[in-house]
Amino acid sequence: MTYQAIVFTEKLEKFSDQWAPKVIAEMNDYQLKLVKIQGDFVWHAHPQTDEVFIVLSGDMQIEFRDGAVDLSAGGMFVVPKGVEHKPFAANECEILLIEPVGVVNTGDAGGEFTAENDVWV
Amino acid sequence: MTYQAIVFTEKLEKFSDQWAPKVIAEMNDYQLKLVKIQGDFVWHAHPQTDEVFIVLSGDMQIEFRDGAVDLSAGGMFVVPKGVEHKPFAANECEILLIEPVGVVNTGDAGGEFTAENDVWV
Repeated sequence: MTYQAIVFTEKLEKFSDQWAPKVIAEMNDYQLKLVKIQGDFVWHAHPQTDEVFIVLSGDMQIEFRDGAVDLSAGGMFVVPKGVEHKPFAANECEILLIEPVGVVNTGDAGGEFTAENDVWV
Repeated sequence: MTYQAIVFTEKLEKFSDQWAPKVIAEMNDYQLKLVKIQGDFVWHAHPQTDEVFIVLSGDMQIEFRDGAVDLSAGGMFVVPKGVEHKPFAANECEILLIEPVGVVNTGDAGGEFTAENDVWV
């Protein structure tokens, strides 16, 4: 039997909406999600969990209340549980997120950027 | 304050031993590990957890008792909990692994390939 790899570029071709994470895999009770971002997101935190950002293409910044981290393709950062952050990308940036099943993109903030959860691509 | 990105290529330059995963980050009770592989690994399973393989450079195959999956850079696969598998790479391949803290590389098999756990780079 031939098993199929999950290929990031193939999955990224299947959607174009920004700030709307798409699940591509599950590991135990965690999900791996692709998301395209551009512009400013909302300040928010995830009170229950850390959150992994891995940049696949482009450049982004994660702002914190006391600083920021710049990420480019091949770079990653773990936003600690409960820490307020605001993602930003001048141009479209493609990201792999890793977080527990059920985590909502806007965390404790809500608002218009809140995306439907558990959407697979 | 400027936070530092974790950059895969910078971390990969810091070690050369194969089949010896190096931790680069933690997310909750999970770790992200880089590993360089070449040749045949041992058949093993992880009875307690799924295991994520993300290929950063090169090509590899994960053999299963009933088939195999081929992975190249930008491709990933989740080996389900308890499923016997044997990684293989004809030439050196660089991988990002994601799994719970404490998971040993040879799982339930042990043997000479068993690497020291929780080594950071």
